[in-house]
Amino acid sequence: MRIITAPDSFKGSLSAKDLCLAMEEGILKADPNAEVVHLPMADGGEGTIESMVFATHGEIFTAEVQDPLGRTIQARYGCLGDGRTAVIEMAQASGLPLLKEEERNPLIASSFGTGQLIRNCLDRGYSRILIGLGGSATNDGGMGMMRALGMEFLDAEGRSLPEGGAGLLALSRIDASRLDSRIANTSFIAASDVTNPLCGENGASHIFGPQKGADREAVLRLDAALKHYAEIIKRQFAVDIIEQPGAGAAGGMGAGAMAFLGAEMRSGIEIVMEFCHFSEQIERADLVMTGEGKLDSQTLSGKVIAGICKLAKQNRVPAVALCGSMSLQAKDMDLLGLDAGFSIVNGPCSLEQAIADAYRLTADKAEQIIRLLGISKQP
Amino acid sequence: MRIITAPDSFKGSLSAKDLCLAMEEGILKADPNAEVVHLPMADGGEGTIESMVFATHGEIFTAEVQDPLGRTIQARYGCLGDGRTAVIEMAQASGLPLLKEEERNPLIASSFGTGQLIRNCLDRGYSRILIGLGGSATNDGGMGMMRALGMEFLDAEGRSLPEGGAGLLALSRIDASRLDSRIANTSFIAASDVTNPLCGENGASHIFGPQKGADREAVLRLDAALKHYAEIIKRQFAVDIIEQPGAGAAGGMGAGAMAFLGAEMRSGIEIVMEFCHFSEQIERADLVMTGEGKLDSQTLSGKVIAGICKLAKQNRVPAVALCGSMSLQAKDMDLLGLDAGFSIVNGPCSLEQAIADAYRLTADKAEQIIRLLGISKQP
Repeated sequence: MRIITAPDSFKGSLSAKDLCLAMEEGILKADPNAEVVHLPMADGGEGTIESMVFATHGEIFTAEVQDPLGRTIQARYGCLGDGRTAVIEMAQASGLPLLKEEERNPLIASSFGTGQLIRNCLDRGYSRILIGLGGSATNDGGMGMMRALGMEFLDAEGRSLPEGGAGLLALSRIDASRLDSRIANTSFIAASDVTNPLCGENGASHIFGPQKGADREAVLRLDAALKHYAEIIKRQFAVDIIEQPGAGAAGGMGAGAMAFLGAEMRSGIEIVMEFCHFSEQIERADLVMTGEGKLDSQTLSGKVIAGICKLAKQNRVPAVALCGSMSLQAKDMDLLGLDAGFSIVNGPCSLEQAIADAYRLTADKAEQIIRLLGISKQP
Repeated sequence: MRIITAPDSFKGSLSAKDLCLAMEEGILKADPNAEVVHLPMADGGEGTIESMVFATHGEIFTAEVQDPLGRTIQARYGCLGDGRTAVIEMAQASGLPLLKEEERNPLIASSFGTGQLIRNCLDRGYSRILIGLGGSATNDGGMGMMRALGMEFLDAEGRSLPEGGAGLLALSRIDASRLDSRIANTSFIAASDVTNPLCGENGASHIFGPQKGADREAVLRLDAALKHYAEIIKRQFAVDIIEQPGAGAAGGMGAGAMAFLGAEMRSGIEIVMEFCHFSEQIERADLVMTGEGKLDSQTLSGKVIAGICKLAKQNRVPAVALCGSMSLQAKDMDLLGLDAGFSIVNGPCSLEQAIADAYRLTADKAEQIIRLLGISKQP
């Protein structure tokens, strides 16, 4: 029996990788001869590096970079098993969780550290760099990132702008003469499920600014700054990114990545599945075991479980899901293409207890599921 | 697919019958063509009438009888689908739950009501009467029961003894001349898993007296009374019941039933399985769905799940269990012959919530299990 473990993370509990390991433990207890293939899922946000590196048997590195306020931190990035693709989560260097509540301020927060991560990848010679655009603390349109890669952002007097989104209001000219030349020979992919434009009511500042610490006035300043930024880019580089879907991802990082790195914007889950060769793996599978924290009506509009089940059905591979809590109706499961779903809990318990025991509970439930499936094989 | 639902009750939550109905609801949602056969389990205690009547498509009746303190109550008894077998739970007429905490007193509590139930069965012409000996409030050796059937228990002056276990101390002679003559033509079976003798440290009074409200002094009086009772029975009827296993069941009711009704003592679960034709049903089944409130290490030494799994294995029929909480290890499940076990809960929740939602949760879980088993049938 060839089983693919392909869960999303249980947010606040187990990572997708750890869920894979727990599932494998249970599967092998029930069927020691099972062949288990791990394809932990991610959507470009937290856990993307861990999942993709684990799925492709790659490697994880650490780099010294600047956090959004310029302090030195250690950030992780990864290399996939193909030896030529690097994977970065911008949140590792420029993420909101790196700041205390009172430090959150997109007027000054910079994506410089994400640029440093890219430089590290270029130094290692990777020819393809995947950047997960989730959870940023910044609203600087990727200015910080590009600075770390050699670009200069100048005001009317030719002075460097201060870091942060507010600085862009004074942008007069972008000097790309010292831009890292290796960028031209590298393909960039930005992974995000955000399709917001750069500016306006649905833009980066209005939609994501407040959760990064921007008040009403700051939102308006940031939005105006990004609009000005897009105009300069259009004038200097003949690239019109202002209405591009996804330009507003990660505080305008989407715009910067498209304009200056030539990045292709891709759905996070799609790119993860593609780079982990999900389609090829599933063709030869007997079962897909997926999962997420909550299996409910939102799962239908989500991308991870829905995407996996769709591929599973196309390949006539049964799909089973584990979860923390289960409230999917049968008709929704049929719509999804999910054959069965089970909560990992083994009786009444608190959420805290379920989270604390999640690894063991997941292993136990996977074991019971494989035992149950083994029934049909009995003599 | 032919599926047998054969759960024990979830104590304090759903009866075995209701569990069967919930399981059927879920099974049929997943597989509308499934054939479901209900064999709700019981062990001779609470729920035995409901389970056996439901399993055999019998009928339930109500009779007016005396409770352990002589008050009039309505008690249920049943007739199995064969039309000739009656089933009684002594707890319906003489049970501990009929008394308030402060009323519990085995010195005076009487099994008279159980005798009235038997008389009702005789009036209806049943040729076989099954008496479930669980949960009695009495310690009277079945004196009350036999009085209701025409026997007289007299002291040295020829006066009737007072009701209750303490009265037996003054027993001088048993007058069976007016015993209901139909008893001789009726076969009696006493269902109980209690194997205690009538008297002594492992006897009815010492082991079960305290939970019925007897203090240390009362226990000693009751034990002496039952010993004296056994001596009179031996002298008058040449029946030595004092060391008979099960004579101590239900406050010595086992002894009375054996001595005066010629009752055969049988294990509760065995007799329920036999009368519901469990063996014949399981031979033609594709799956047995059983269950109990807690699946844990005690399940191994229990009789219901263990008995069902044993029969299932003998017939090469897979067995799956639902439960409130699940903590069975795989090796114990293998020992039992249980293929898989699942808690009905669908996420973290309180015990109260699980109990309140037990019917729906059971239906949902049964549905998921049948969906999962359906995987192997996919094209």
